[in-house]
Amino acid sequence: MTVNTATPEQQLGPAPEAELARVDAWWRAANYLSAGQIYLLDNPLLAEPLAPEHLKPRLLGHWGTVPGLTLTYAHLNRVIRRTSADVLFVAGPGHGAAALNAASWLEGTYSEFHTAIGQDTDGMRALFRQFSFPGGVSSHASPHVPGSIHEGGELGYSLAHATGAALDNPGLVVACVVGDGEAETGPLAASWHAPAFLDPDGDGVVLPILHVNGYKIANPTVLSRLPKADLHGLLRGHGWEPIEVECPLGADPASVHERYAAALDEGFERIADRAHPMIVLRTPKGWTGPSEFDGHRLEGTWRAHQVPLPGARRDPLQLAQLERWLRSYRPEELFTAEGAPAPLVRSQRPRAELRMSGTPRAHGLTQRDLRLPEVADYALEVPVPGQVLAESTRVLGAYLRDTLVLNAEERNLLLFSPDEHASNRLDATFEVTGRRWQLPTESGDEHLAGDGRVLEVLSEHLCQGWLEGYLLTGRHGLFSTYEAFAHLVDSMVAQHAKWVHTAAGVPWRRPVPSLNYLLTSHVWRQDHNGASHQDPGFIDHILSKRAEVARVYLPPDANCLLQVTDHCLRSRGLVNVIVAGKQPEYQYLGHDAARAHCAQGIGIWEWAGTESVDGADVVLACAGDVPTQEALAAVGVLRGLVPDLRIRVVNVVDLTRLAARERHPHGLTDRDYTAIFTEDTPVIFAFHGYPWLIHELTYSRPGHEHLHVHGFSENGTTTTPFDMCVLNGIDRFQLALAALERVPRVAGRLGNLRQRLLAELDRHHDHIRRTGEDLPEIRAWRWGR
Amino acid sequence: MTVNTATPEQQLGPAPEAELARVDAWWRAANYLSAGQIYLLDNPLLAEPLAPEHLKPRLLGHWGTVPGLTLTYAHLNRVIRRTSADVLFVAGPGHGAAALNAASWLEGTYSEFHTAIGQDTDGMRALFRQFSFPGGVSSHASPHVPGSIHEGGELGYSLAHATGAALDNPGLVVACVVGDGEAETGPLAASWHAPAFLDPDGDGVVLPILHVNGYKIANPTVLSRLPKADLHGLLRGHGWEPIEVECPLGADPASVHERYAAALDEGFERIADRAHPMIVLRTPKGWTGPSEFDGHRLEGTWRAHQVPLPGARRDPLQLAQLERWLRSYRPEELFTAEGAPAPLVRSQRPRAELRMSGTPRAHGLTQRDLRLPEVADYALEVPVPGQVLAESTRVLGAYLRDTLVLNAEERNLLLFSPDEHASNRLDATFEVTGRRWQLPTESGDEHLAGDGRVLEVLSEHLCQGWLEGYLLTGRHGLFSTYEAFAHLVDSMVAQHAKWVHTAAGVPWRRPVPSLNYLLTSHVWRQDHNGASHQDPGFIDHILSKRAEVARVYLPPDANCLLQVTDHCLRSRGLVNVIVAGKQPEYQYLGHDAARAHCAQGIGIWEWAGTESVDGADVVLACAGDVPTQEALAAVGVLRGLVPDLRIRVVNVVDLTRLAARERHPHGLTDRDYTAIFTEDTPVIFAFHGYPWLIHELTYSRPGHEHLHVHGFSENGTTTTPFDMCVLNGIDRFQLALAALERVPRVAGRLGNLRQRLLAELDRHHDHIRRTGEDLPEIRAWRWGR
Repeated sequence: MTVNTATPEQQLGPAPEAELARVDAWWRAANYLSAGQIYLLDNPLLAEPLAPEHLKPRLLGHWGTVPGLTLTYAHLNRVIRRTSADVLFVAGPGHGAAALNAASWLEGTYSEFHTAIGQDTDGMRALFRQFSFPGGVSSHASPHVPGSIHEGGELGYSLAHATGAALDNPGLVVACVVGDGEAETGPLAASWHAPAFLDPDGDGVVLPILHVNGYKIANPTVLSRLPKADLHGLLRGHGWEPIEVECPLGADPASVHERYAAALDEGFERIADRAHPMIVLRTPKGWTGPSEFDGHRLEGTWRAHQVPLPGARRDPLQLAQLERWLRSYRPEELFTAEGAPAPLVRSQRPRAELRMSGTPRAHGLTQRDLRLPEVADYALEVPVPGQVLAESTRVLGAYLRDTLVLNAEERNLLLFSPDEHASNRLDATFEVTGRRWQLPTESGDEHLAGDGRVLEVLSEHLCQGWLEGYLLTGRHGLFSTYEAFAHLVDSMVAQHAKWVHTAAGVPWRRPVPSLNYLLTSHVWRQDHNGASHQDPGFIDHILSKRAEVARVYLPPDANCLLQVTDHCLRSRGLVNVIVAGKQPEYQYLGHDAARAHCAQGIGIWEWAGTESVDGADVVLACAGDVPTQEALAAVGVLRGLVPDLRIRVVNVVDLTRLAARERHPHGLTDRDYTAIFTEDTPVIFAFHGYPWLIHELTYSRPGHEHLHVHGFSENGTTTTPFDMCVLNGIDRFQLALAALERVPRVAGRLGNLRQRLLAELDRHHDHIRRTGEDLPEIRAWRWGR
Repeated sequence: MTVNTATPEQQLGPAPEAELARVDAWWRAANYLSAGQIYLLDNPLLAEPLAPEHLKPRLLGHWGTVPGLTLTYAHLNRVIRRTSADVLFVAGPGHGAAALNAASWLEGTYSEFHTAIGQDTDGMRALFRQFSFPGGVSSHASPHVPGSIHEGGELGYSLAHATGAALDNPGLVVACVVGDGEAETGPLAASWHAPAFLDPDGDGVVLPILHVNGYKIANPTVLSRLPKADLHGLLRGHGWEPIEVECPLGADPASVHERYAAALDEGFERIADRAHPMIVLRTPKGWTGPSEFDGHRLEGTWRAHQVPLPGARRDPLQLAQLERWLRSYRPEELFTAEGAPAPLVRSQRPRAELRMSGTPRAHGLTQRDLRLPEVADYALEVPVPGQVLAESTRVLGAYLRDTLVLNAEERNLLLFSPDEHASNRLDATFEVTGRRWQLPTESGDEHLAGDGRVLEVLSEHLCQGWLEGYLLTGRHGLFSTYEAFAHLVDSMVAQHAKWVHTAAGVPWRRPVPSLNYLLTSHVWRQDHNGASHQDPGFIDHILSKRAEVARVYLPPDANCLLQVTDHCLRSRGLVNVIVAGKQPEYQYLGHDAARAHCAQGIGIWEWAGTESVDGADVVLACAGDVPTQEALAAVGVLRGLVPDLRIRVVNVVDLTRLAARERHPHGLTDRDYTAIFTEDTPVIFAFHGYPWLIHELTYSRPGHEHLHVHGFSENGTTTTPFDMCVLNGIDRFQLALAALERVPRVAGRLGNLRQRLLAELDRHHDHIRRTGEDLPEIRAWRWGR
């Protein structure tokens, strides 16, 4: 990567004392403002003696991590001023948001974005008051914080987000503070492998700052108690070059500043040499805060984690201690009488366009639309429904390949997968790119490339975290993964959904490209695996997230998959889940029909039904590729048994069309819903996932009592594709039986029909158990035959 | 720990050649049997030339990892025979289950447990045929595999499971094969920190065997391409002492055996010296399999991952290649003409009680019941409902403390938490124990102890994985965690639920103690945090798992929490989720009332209602501590507004009582359900979680159309406790309004009543936004006032 060199007036070399004095002033100011946010309702400049009524009635926030964050921010600003480096700041301990608010306010950006909070006494008062206050701002680095792409409430993802932000951003330095608590999490532990993937030419640089302050909420951290040599070995083993900055309790700030400045200078020099430097910053937890409280040491221990003086409003001693603490920063040096940052502090601001809190990269402003190919050019010919077999995701692969080509110059699309990209039949992309990989290669390897546009690592957490970081900095992506293991990122996607929903209410943020999942290798086709790989519940989880952001699509065939993917890649600010199999499946809709069907998201497939002008005896509904096949096969079974049965076939692509309009913006009106499902016709619904999800979406619909859902009922095992359907009651025979059982006019013949269907099931069961295969008639089934 | 020393006839020292020849024979036999499982329907001994009809029509399984697993198993058996060590084997790459089936069959244990599969030709044929075959066994190390506690289908948890199995098992060696693919996952990466926690006196030993075979499904692995020094630094940094065993492609097996034997001997010696040795085993993927296929190198590459010769049934060349491969193991040396292991192989079996595939630890047979104190001794006095405040989890802490004391000798209960044990108010336990910790301590630390019975690490994955390993080896535990972050282990708990459900059908396994969660710091009281910490959806996820194992409890107060916890700690084979706040909340039921209420799981609280003999105008139902408080407060509001309103109050502790009986074994009959909720009275349900979960459970209930659920509607933020209720519509005023809107006889006054209630809400809202606090009347609310 290229780091901008120093401007003439800002030479490199040891930091002069005056500069470090300014850094120190900036640091004190940020610490003062952070503590002020936790405690103060009023008297922000301490213009008068501190009184109980100046304090918030509920003292909320996290002081412990703040001084390390502010120190790092101050020193990064020094480097930025000297080198004009383009730096994005990621605060792993996002619960120290007070530090980021303070930094942004000192830089002037906070007031630019939050215009009600100016750089004066009133503004400072408002900044303090709103923090963790009803109607105000949260205690985490949420979207209201300028420059933030990382909330940091759920720990573990900072380094993955930073890595994602660095991908395809040559020249960018992503400075990422990793708390030593966060470092104990699995996702963070795996994230240290970033150097194996980051391309020194095409990607930016991640500069981890491992902030070792020794304690979590109540425990020491593991990394802080490892011998230094062990910790360095651990980090070096992952490809990093650690640089130590140690600030023991009682250390002279001046010497600390000197060392931290030298360390960062060294780090930035090594970056220019294409190395992977990182900082190990050891500072006491809650440094510069109260040293003792209630007979216990506080500064430098876990007791500094949240609010050091929780009783300051009612206890005069604590109040006095608080006042001493706040005045220890010498606010009179740091702020003018009018409450603006004093020149000493102001002078440490980087130029406006280089301020970390103002970077347009963090606010979605640098994004460009993808250039997408014409879907029609990739559509399969489907002259007759249900006769042609194709692997839907393979068809998608060609579309994705050409999308990569169209955006090759822009370099703003990446595909992520936990070692399943080719297995998921997306390997057409390897005609034009490879898998990003920086480690040595060997002769058996395939499609590895230093600048590959496919990111593969056997960690759903990393795929998700990298993709999130990539999206949050305004680029586009797709995450293809085994359906069952999408649950690994349940918690991550919940946090991301909250982020994009909250960000949508922040006017100076532009919605970023959507988080797109392709769930394949799904529950119905786990031929090599079995129960552990069978779980369709990720879509249940997604639909529990805010309706404004949650979308679920179940394209029944390749042309619908193309339509849906094209739609998702154009969208912004959403979480789109697409579920589509990778095995050969029948194709039903040509390009135009698929486009029309997907535009509606749900529809009656007249070509598949047998209803008359008087309506239908039964509705067979389906959602998902395998259920659609079985529902259509059930039509054939039913026509064979009861030739005059009037059947309506409904296919659902956009699952949220089923939801009540009050619950989801895509929900059909009750009128449109009943136009499709009627109010009184029995509906047999063959569903890809857990049956209760359909009930959850439709319980308030007219005629819900006539809806009978067949779906995955946790009967997972290693068996044939058809046997999986049988075990879970969504095969053609059980669907047909369920339909017949609800049609009054066949009641007289039902006993006989049931016997015939159950005998069919037995015949299949016996054959499968004996031979290990489905009957040839199942394997050779086609629509209409 | 103590390792048994060698018996007189089995001296330590370099392995004699004859012994290694037997190890090699055992290895070849296991490889032959593994390949046989993937390919053969018949002709198991290759007594005749291999023909297409001898092959399975669908070839399923994973060969690539097998030879490393079998090699390791063979060499561990050598050590066990020489040292009589007590070893539990955990296969991270559980998709290599064919290797474990083979090993167990060779040891004779398979036939002891699966009596239809004998040690003869018929038995071998059956062993082969059933593998990945309909009606047979899965391709993973699922509960049918003797000696397995780890399915290994979802990668990432082997080392955490192994660590959990080692806890409180002095003298045990848990040999854990970690695939280099699995090692890329977050949970596995964090698991390397085990030495920081394992007590060299009271715990067993974990012996990781990092199996570096270089490739995943389609990609090289990161760890395999790190310079050796880097990998060793990484592992040493975590506290391990790596011992390399390298077997390059083409290596002479004899020399490999010599080196592996020496490495394991060295490892076991270091174990006796209280060190943390581990093996780095480098073998080619698919070693000893076909070296080439279809013009590509296969052995030693990713192409060996699944079935090396997929077309062997239809392609004579592949068939011939398969036959050469199988015969290369010289089956005629390994098996008798009758299909039993030949003496050469047989002689490498450890003594029956030392066979890894037969260890009773893995089958739940070593478990002992917990000794539990009398719940009554911990129950709070509750003379009048809703007048006494208490932190429910603090009351539980005393009960847990004494439970630890009662089982101190047995050492079969551990408490797990991601750095929240004290924050969750369970700190009474620190009167009798500490947090397990082996790293250096400092003066600010509290309650650390080498043998502590509380395990804290900032990783939900590790807490869960350790606990699972502990439970699966027959001990007891409780995992207390922030409610929102329980989603981190969604996928892990899904796998565990599948395991215990499947294991329940295996007659030689005894159900193990249940997986117990205490979700606290819940959605309604995240005063310091906000949106990222507010998500009650874990219980939705749990209730999508099999009803046979899934349980969810929402105790409304401390005495109910005691009852429920006592019940869960006595149970077996379940996943129990208890949701209970840690903040001061009102107490409603005394010991006897709590016992009766929890025994029913749901009940009418007559003392809280106002219904007459003619019934009720409205039912106010509630589940969860905060919703219960608001529902009771709503009764007060309603009585103030409409003194003659007849209200029934229903409280739900066991959420699955609401489910239809067909869906869950705890489900009430419709008759019992309507006895509580009636068929026609409006029900206003104040629910702890997402409202649709209640609808999902009750959609088929009579009178469901009268059910109106108020719950968390994703309106999360940092605000006051009461404001959180207001934002999500479960506060007393909105509940009261919802009730009045459904009572026909107040319709005439509704406009006026609504105005009064909305004015109340405004008054609260204004106060909260102005002062940052709830109104004193909210904070001072008590039942009956």
